[in-house]
Amino acid sequence: MADITGKKVAFVLTDGFEDSELTSPWEAVQAAGALPTLVAPKDGQVEGKKGHTQAVDALAKDTQASDFDALVLPGGVVNADHLRMDDDAVALVKGFVDAGKPIGVICHGAWILIEAGGVDGRRITSYPSLRTDLRNAGADWVDEEVVTDNGLVSSRTPDDLPAFNAKIVEEFAEGVHEG
Amino acid sequence: MADITGKKVAFVLTDGFEDSELTSPWEAVQAAGALPTLVAPKDGQVEGKKGHTQAVDALAKDTQASDFDALVLPGGVVNADHLRMDDDAVALVKGFVDAGKPIGVICHGAWILIEAGGVDGRRITSYPSLRTDLRNAGADWVDEEVVTDNGLVSSRTPDDLPAFNAKIVEEFAEGVHEG
Repeated sequence: MADITGKKVAFVLTDGFEDSELTSPWEAVQAAGALPTLVAPKDGQVEGKKGHTQAVDALAKDTQASDFDALVLPGGVVNADHLRMDDDAVALVKGFVDAGKPIGVICHGAWILIEAGGVDGRRITSYPSLRTDLRNAGADWVDEEVVTDNGLVSSRTPDDLPAFNAKIVEEFAEGVHEG
Repeated sequence: MADITGKKVAFVLTDGFEDSELTSPWEAVQAAGALPTLVAPKDGQVEGKKGHTQAVDALAKDTQASDFDALVLPGGVVNADHLRMDDDAVALVKGFVDAGKPIGVICHGAWILIEAGGVDGRRITSYPSLRTDLRNAGADWVDEEVVTDNGLVSSRTPDDLPAFNAKIVEEFAEGVHEG
């Protein structure tokens, strides 16, 4: 596995996330030496759709892409539907897009990337319900376990997590991708 | 209130709908003399996010737009996210779009209309999280209590239901709108 020792990885999410899409990539980047941070629009803790709770480390309004090396956007339909309406979270995600920093996005998380202007012209996959929204936003949507496009790693569902985790560590090791 | 006696109105939805966005328009069209039918992708019953259950009257695969005079699409993020992936439900909704039959859509219900190709060039409102998806699909999205565009009635949230109900009855009374 690639070495990402000391790299700072932001996980941006709110209540209603798909539990394993937080916990599994979190453990994977930690195991590879990185330092994950849970960023949310609210303080206290966040709760997944299946009941996993985790402490919020930083508020979206107090953080920016320059504080981190990479970004992970978990899914969960309610999480993504709410997060895309939070201006601070969307601005934070847009910072990663604009800087060309590596991003991992899974399931419904891609809605937030649509909101941040991060999918136009990119090859991407997602939960199948987002297919039309992603294509209308200019993405080249495909139905594959994991897709990598110039530092943007995407997967469809929790079943894809082993492939997703391996690929985000690889891309996070490569660092900033020039657009 | 306009008279829609005997008009057949399809309510197309699945589990996870916003309860009042089914029950309130259902009662409104019934009070105005119409005959509502609950159409779903599965038989048995559907359950709203707050626990309202209601019997399914007909399966999406067994119905078509020509069986009805008008359509209502309730919201609820999980309902809309799932329904837009059901080919039979999307085909049924597309039939109303193509025939110019009046449609009422509220909250997250507009995702199904995106999938059925029913928003391009139309003036519409929705739950605010869908704004970007609707604009990317070619709609003129506005933030108003109720919007009417040539037989397409739309609202944002359950708070808008009184205005929404009054307007759908009016548009359903007018019948088919030439495009």
